[in-house]
Amino acid sequence: MTTPKLAIGLDIGGTKIAGAVVDDDGGVLAELVEPTPEESDAAAVCAVLLDLIERFRAEHEVHSIGVGAAGIVEWPAGRMLWAPNNSYRDWPIREQLEKLTGLPVVADNDANVAAYAEARLGHRDSGNDREAPYANMALVTVGTGIGGGLVLDGRIYRGPTGLAAELGHMVLNPDGPECGCGNHGCFEAYASGTALTRMGREAASDDPDGLIARLGAEQGEVTGHTVVTAVQQGDPTGRALFARLGRWLGVGIASLANIFEVQAVVVGGGLVETGELLLEPARVAAREYAFAPTARGVTPVVPATFGGDAGKIGAALLALEHAQP
Amino acid sequence: MTTPKLAIGLDIGGTKIAGAVVDDDGGVLAELVEPTPEESDAAAVCAVLLDLIERFRAEHEVHSIGVGAAGIVEWPAGRMLWAPNNSYRDWPIREQLEKLTGLPVVADNDANVAAYAEARLGHRDSGNDREAPYANMALVTVGTGIGGGLVLDGRIYRGPTGLAAELGHMVLNPDGPECGCGNHGCFEAYASGTALTRMGREAASDDPDGLIARLGAEQGEVTGHTVVTAVQQGDPTGRALFARLGRWLGVGIASLANIFEVQAVVVGGGLVETGELLLEPARVAAREYAFAPTARGVTPVVPATFGGDAGKIGAALLALEHAQP
Repeated sequence: MTTPKLAIGLDIGGTKIAGAVVDDDGGVLAELVEPTPEESDAAAVCAVLLDLIERFRAEHEVHSIGVGAAGIVEWPAGRMLWAPNNSYRDWPIREQLEKLTGLPVVADNDANVAAYAEARLGHRDSGNDREAPYANMALVTVGTGIGGGLVLDGRIYRGPTGLAAELGHMVLNPDGPECGCGNHGCFEAYASGTALTRMGREAASDDPDGLIARLGAEQGEVTGHTVVTAVQQGDPTGRALFARLGRWLGVGIASLANIFEVQAVVVGGGLVETGELLLEPARVAAREYAFAPTARGVTPVVPATFGGDAGKIGAALLALEHAQP
Repeated sequence: MTTPKLAIGLDIGGTKIAGAVVDDDGGVLAELVEPTPEESDAAAVCAVLLDLIERFRAEHEVHSIGVGAAGIVEWPAGRMLWAPNNSYRDWPIREQLEKLTGLPVVADNDANVAAYAEARLGHRDSGNDREAPYANMALVTVGTGIGGGLVLDGRIYRGPTGLAAELGHMVLNPDGPECGCGNHGCFEAYASGTALTRMGREAASDDPDGLIARLGAEQGEVTGHTVVTAVQQGDPTGRALFARLGRWLGVGIASLANIFEVQAVVVGGGLVETGELLLEPARVAAREYAFAPTARGVTPVVPATFGGDAGKIGAALLALEHAQP
């Protein structure tokens, strides 16, 4: 009897814990999701994980388990040192789950495993074909902040702490707007949801009779969502703000592409759901700031394939590749 | 009889070919240098390399040969595809040298092997102790342009072409001055010898009676060297320009450190010979723009240990580690 090549991928977030049974091609055979327990210490979170694992194993024979989680995860030890939204600290999750399940386990940072999923199995720019994995790829997730991960020379770049690449704190202009981190002009300060909120508020203050200001008054405050709504209603100011946001996204993407000569920059996160509104100006700027485009070509800017599923799929793929029975 | 752990390191530049016999601790037992032949095709350069190798082998028993060269070198194949200043193209140097010498050979980009030497054996910030190698380190070489290399997770980052990291074309301000590459606001456009020349010319034009303008008139034109001379003569304008250059260097260093959480940024290249004049403002800015300095500390900015010898030493170290007899 051969072990089928299936793994359980688990993605531990601040509000939910998502799981899937995944095959070696990234195909999802089963999915489950549970809320993150309010008391999010190791014992409570572990109980949820074990419940999910048991339910999956009742239906599928799996080779291994992969866990992705926000925060600092020691690789390859699989110890969760710290999480931004959960209360567990210094939790040897890999060791504990291996003991309790009898299966080999890997654990890594959620952005790392998401980048891994996109590099291994994300759609190619050329269309929907699944071709060779990207050996060199950056994932830029545009949400409240800018996060992401790097796959370099075929490997996840983890850095000294395992926290993955802090792409959002690349400096795009030292005299730029203040970033949440306290610096000025970070990528995140220019091209995130927070930046869109800031730009929307400036626009509302500049034009108190404009659509953004009026929508903001209805909603109680102007946020990035207000700007998206304004654009959906055909507001030219909103479109101009998106063009500016997309342009800065493209400048950051070009900078990453210039440094690493990545084969693609994959854009994920909530804001990529606005599609070409964001990606088109990003592509224009990425081309404008590309280094030696004649010799090297221009790095493609592509939307993420797996969206919110990238974490659990990437965790399972990593388990299939690295977990040692 | 055991083979002594010695390798020959060869650094092929546009004007000279430098060689050394190096031990596993980076110690140099012998050195030779020859001009690069005017007709710098594969045959002519190979003849010089073989002559150096023969002279070294007459005195030392070596384990292997490492070659570093500017341009695009395919790793691990060791094929030199292209060089900026030499005329050889698509030259299978590794294969050819292995056949002609009977020794195992590795060949890599010169910035890659220089970064490797600094990461493996460069002095530590704490003093002159040789401690553990840096697993994560950026080498930034400040000369006419900005070059460098990255060692990430203990490995040289080579990227898809082997050309190494193009650190000089990170974007530090999309509205900044034009770079030699045609873009605007690259790291190189702000913090290189070329940038110093540009700033010196602006200063001379703003103050035609100032020392920089007068020295420039004597020398025929204002260059970065003119600014260095002015500083040596106590010129406050020259000092201010260095402070600005160093500040931009620090911003770029901070950006690299933020992305990668490198353990050190090592600064090499001709301009680092100005010492603290450049490094002090760079350290201040690197601290100012550091991400989460309280949690992560501030990445040390240290001058390169091996200077112009880093290429041949790094090539030899790489051979000792990777060349397969």
